[in-house]
Amino acid sequence: MSATVDFYPSRISAPAGFIPRKDPVVYSDVRPARTCPLTESEIGFYQENGYLCFESLFPEAEVAEYQKELLRLRDSEEVKRGRDVILEPQSNEIRSIFAVHRHNPVFRRLAGDGRIVGRVSYLLGSPVYMHQSRINYKPGIHGKEFFWHSDFETWHMEDGMPRMRAISCSISLSENNEFNGPLMLIPGSHRHFLACVGETPENHYEQSLRKQEYGVPDAESLKWLVDQGGIISSKGPAGSVTFFECNMMHGSNSNISPWPRSNVFFVYNSVENVLVKPFCGLAPRPEHIASRDFEVLKSL
Amino acid sequence: MSATVDFYPSRISAPAGFIPRKDPVVYSDVRPARTCPLTESEIGFYQENGYLCFESLFPEAEVAEYQKELLRLRDSEEVKRGRDVILEPQSNEIRSIFAVHRHNPVFRRLAGDGRIVGRVSYLLGSPVYMHQSRINYKPGIHGKEFFWHSDFETWHMEDGMPRMRAISCSISLSENNEFNGPLMLIPGSHRHFLACVGETPENHYEQSLRKQEYGVPDAESLKWLVDQGGIISSKGPAGSVTFFECNMMHGSNSNISPWPRSNVFFVYNSVENVLVKPFCGLAPRPEHIASRDFEVLKSL
Repeated sequence: MSATVDFYPSRISAPAGFIPRKDPVVYSDVRPARTCPLTESEIGFYQENGYLCFESLFPEAEVAEYQKELLRLRDSEEVKRGRDVILEPQSNEIRSIFAVHRHNPVFRRLAGDGRIVGRVSYLLGSPVYMHQSRINYKPGIHGKEFFWHSDFETWHMEDGMPRMRAISCSISLSENNEFNGPLMLIPGSHRHFLACVGETPENHYEQSLRKQEYGVPDAESLKWLVDQGGIISSKGPAGSVTFFECNMMHGSNSNISPWPRSNVFFVYNSVENVLVKPFCGLAPRPEHIASRDFEVLKSL
Repeated sequence: MSATVDFYPSRISAPAGFIPRKDPVVYSDVRPARTCPLTESEIGFYQENGYLCFESLFPEAEVAEYQKELLRLRDSEEVKRGRDVILEPQSNEIRSIFAVHRHNPVFRRLAGDGRIVGRVSYLLGSPVYMHQSRINYKPGIHGKEFFWHSDFETWHMEDGMPRMRAISCSISLSENNEFNGPLMLIPGSHRHFLACVGETPENHYEQSLRKQEYGVPDAESLKWLVDQGGIISSKGPAGSVTFFECNMMHGSNSNISPWPRSNVFFVYNSVENVLVKPFCGLAPRPEHIASRDFEVLKSL
């Protein structure tokens, strides 16, 4: 296979509906050996639904350390001035900090944690590297929604990720409940690639990380996906972890509750799926958003 | 008591915190006679928490009739041009239709339904009239949030409702679930009146019914209320009914799910609490938003 063939064209001029997925979902044996970090039923569930939730995968004491670091970063004026930071569209509050696995020792260690990397490497059938890492703050009271999108669609078009062989991992650092805008996923949506309408503007990421308007599904396609698979939300205490396949349709509602919804978000890509030129034809997004350092993450 | 004394001053220049409620919550005997439409435990719950939910109070066949009428009105070009209609801030879709109990035979009958009026009249200890009625559409995919507010604060300041002796009743005409931005209530918040900051602009209602910016709580006060009482959301199949006290702090998150969240909303005020001049000193809001027709609703 040549990496420059575009298996998933998007940002086109008229709606073209869904393309069936052309890649495996699970790249290892679905009947695992004894040493596998996942059970057969977990692997089957992931294959079918595209996600896995583990409640309280990280114990309270460990989570407390990450929370402390999260607040320290949020309150640092130096961090706020950095180019890795995205602010909320209508306020000066921090929405996201990127590349935390690179700049921050606490989150660098977490990024290589065996409880995460072991599971991800098994599902992707290879060693992995970090495509993107970030902290999302989603403050209480005025937390804005993230509209539905497939991350793969963006990573393919704007970053040049050739195939569907990456997994996102969201580690919650605050309780996620029905009131504070939890992550919503459409089970099964990873099996369908939706070509989105509209040409990519230059430097699109400068806006899209605040409020995404390109690379989002049309109403009819969204309804179709939800008719097939429904919606689930990922709820649970801080320290819970959700793994989801790179092509899952996901989003979240606003958060007018006073409870913030913070999480650490790691994207692991297979080292056999490294980035090529972006398929939208524009320049690649910056390094802190889409890393071209393909160094294998050693599982700690 | 003179109706022109302002027991609940608001729209002031600096935060003044909470005023304890000066009015009863339940105006009838909390130990009901045999003919009462509510049980003693329901009355006690309402007194303490400020709301009551009844799942499937209206059976499916009856709900189907209201749903049909709802869609007919939504698709009527004549209705859309009327002054009783509020459109969504960023689209041309109908957000609300006011005064439906006056203009529409189906909803006029529902407004007087004994299952509602009986319960409300008991709690308010008097006959009631309709202060405001409306249909809320809250469309799917792009349904916007309603920020937290106490209706009484607005009705007192902008409509001249003297005391807390009114009840809102929300009849769901679509399933309400955790994904489609259900009504959220802060239990116990009806016992505290929060004076809001900021002078009321003239013709405020023209904006506030789309997006409210005055008469909303500050972050600290909101956190305090939630610390006391938490948050509940009113979920259930179409035909479920939520009654809530006029001073309850309530709101709802956005709705990016494809499922619309429609309801009929009736506000019953005691005939012993009819409107006087608005306490903000401006002209009253129009009749279709705050009725000055105090005719007693006969329970059907």
